[in-house]
Amino acid sequence: MKLIKGGVTSPKGFKANGFWAGVKKSGKPDLGLVYSETICTSAAVFTRSSVKAAPIIVCQENISDGKTQALIANSGNANCFTGEYGLMYARKMTELVADQCGIKASNVLVMSTGIIGRPFPYEKFKEAVPKLVSGLSQAKGASFAKAIMTTDLKDKQVAVRIEIDGKIITIGGCAKGSGMIEPNMATMLACVTTDAVISSAMLKQALLEAVEVSFNSITVDGCMSTNDMLSVMANGMAGNKNITAKNSSYKAFVEALTAVCVKLARDIVFDGEGAERFFEIRLTGAESNQQAKEVAMKIANSNLVKTADYTDNPNWGRVAAAIGACGTKATETTIKISFSVKRNNIFINADIGLGTGSATVYTCDLTRAYVDINGKYN
Amino acid sequence: MKLIKGGVTSPKGFKANGFWAGVKKSGKPDLGLVYSETICTSAAVFTRSSVKAAPIIVCQENISDGKTQALIANSGNANCFTGEYGLMYARKMTELVADQCGIKASNVLVMSTGIIGRPFPYEKFKEAVPKLVSGLSQAKGASFAKAIMTTDLKDKQVAVRIEIDGKIITIGGCAKGSGMIEPNMATMLACVTTDAVISSAMLKQALLEAVEVSFNSITVDGCMSTNDMLSVMANGMAGNKNITAKNSSYKAFVEALTAVCVKLARDIVFDGEGAERFFEIRLTGAESNQQAKEVAMKIANSNLVKTADYTDNPNWGRVAAAIGACGTKATETTIKISFSVKRNNIFINADIGLGTGSATVYTCDLTRAYVDINGKYN
Repeated sequence: MKLIKGGVTSPKGFKANGFWAGVKKSGKPDLGLVYSETICTSAAVFTRSSVKAAPIIVCQENISDGKTQALIANSGNANCFTGEYGLMYARKMTELVADQCGIKASNVLVMSTGIIGRPFPYEKFKEAVPKLVSGLSQAKGASFAKAIMTTDLKDKQVAVRIEIDGKIITIGGCAKGSGMIEPNMATMLACVTTDAVISSAMLKQALLEAVEVSFNSITVDGCMSTNDMLSVMANGMAGNKNITAKNSSYKAFVEALTAVCVKLARDIVFDGEGAERFFEIRLTGAESNQQAKEVAMKIANSNLVKTADYTDNPNWGRVAAAIGACGTKATETTIKISFSVKRNNIFINADIGLGTGSATVYTCDLTRAYVDINGKYN
Repeated sequence: MKLIKGGVTSPKGFKANGFWAGVKKSGKPDLGLVYSETICTSAAVFTRSSVKAAPIIVCQENISDGKTQALIANSGNANCFTGEYGLMYARKMTELVADQCGIKASNVLVMSTGIIGRPFPYEKFKEAVPKLVSGLSQAKGASFAKAIMTTDLKDKQVAVRIEIDGKIITIGGCAKGSGMIEPNMATMLACVTTDAVISSAMLKQALLEAVEVSFNSITVDGCMSTNDMLSVMANGMAGNKNITAKNSSYKAFVEALTAVCVKLARDIVFDGEGAERFFEIRLTGAESNQQAKEVAMKIANSNLVKTADYTDNPNWGRVAAAIGACGTKATETTIKISFSVKRNNIFINADIGLGTGSATVYTCDLTRAYVDINGKYN
């Protein structure tokens, strides 16, 4: 597997675009589109929140046949808690793209991120869609990545290349994160593309495997969003033999897809709101992998762990207290904790001495800047 | 019920003391004692953490017969994760008091609060105990309240008076809080005294009722401690008819005990680490009271809710997102949210439209000062 410079337009046959459609007061990009020349086998994972944003509901309908060809995304407005109008506008966003591209609206996905509960500025986006479609190009993957940013400081893009059956397969992706990032969700917004030939069932399975150790293993503030979504689109233009079973080709694909997802998920944590330090928490000795992840996430979401000073004599009592609060059988006599610190990277190793389950999760620190950013963002 | 000035020594027959025994570098009080002239019917609730501090283990043994006569408490060291020595020293603390007071060690409780995992400075406390006992007086309730403080800015004391069977009954209490304050625990440290005559079974029941709506309804940072404990000692010197059933006397006692616990719990939140604003979150329309409390606590523990600006156009989307993350059936169409803001007091009313369950919880905001305090505390 080779890491290459690029993003969602690195795989064959993908184009993108993104610019300011007039919604964000800052004048920063707020509308983007990813388009495939041919119809794609697709899969997606969504927020587990019971309060789902309108675009989530529309995407769940449109992804049900496993086929998509385009994805439109906006920042500056979450289109959540916006009632029937919000749902109507989310559908209209897919229709606008379908009309301009000459494809079916049911093959278009829509993502939104921004403030909850504000009327969706549909008219501004509507005016911008013709220009968005006419300006699509292979060179504009980064424009799309920037269009989905909110309080993110950096765009998050990645692309990798693998060889399957003598064919070069590329997987590209981008994501936005920052705040409201918590375990047990899809992610904030992430879009992954590939030119691999893969069946709908295998793509869905590969996505679930990749998400578990990437987007579902990070937390910034323990706050689950109403808009989280990750989609993957496979247009088959690489021409490899169709991946229809869990064979060696599938394994190579999952490994590459996982690498893409882990890179994007780690980028989200590194760019967490106000983050200055990055934590990697390795939890071992649990009764199961699931228990390991629950305990690791409890440590990662402890405000006391996230604010502690690790430069001298790390306060491991706070890690022990977080473990104790998980309802496991771990006690003082079963728990072992160690730290290593390299500049702004803090590695916490905790063994709870109950079994062989393990998990690794990623988080960032809680800083004055997080408090400032979230006091002002409205 | 009448609120009076006072604390743990307001009920008849209780004395206290507290001073600096040389453990805290700051020179602030770090050792305290509460003593009853006669043996007390007692009950206590403890942290639900699987990592229990040594004093918790000793208290669970000593309270098992429902009788106590004294309570020694220290700050500056949690005596947690301190191994067999820690446990031995926790027992020795009770023995020192027993020897000096001429009572049984099994009738002495011991509480500790401070940093986890540091060797317990037993020798310093040992030297101080004779002076601690000889200086006991009815006037020194506040000295005890100050001796259990860590990062608390203010001591937390309360006393109330009620009349049962024509007898005046007093309940007094004090607590310490600040950080590592989370739902589903006893509290940090709290000591409640009363001169009521009440059976062991009824006292335990009354304590559970009072704790549910007070200490178990507050959160500062969602971090459960290893040392949380609340004890109540009833020495019977008020001379009322023994409360042995859930009659009108019991109800009057529970009401007064609840008032004491709510006052102390709210004081803990008001004095939360770095707190500048106080939140009262009223959750209605849940399927059960338990569900209401879970959802209210999720809102109260959301860093996004706790950092938001409520002065203009409150960001209710963050409350909606927190509700959505709870795994209930609440959706955009069932949820109603309203705010009222009076100076630094923010009232959040959320109805999730599923049933008749309700709960009220209390929290404080998350500030730069919280980050600073917990970066430095070690």
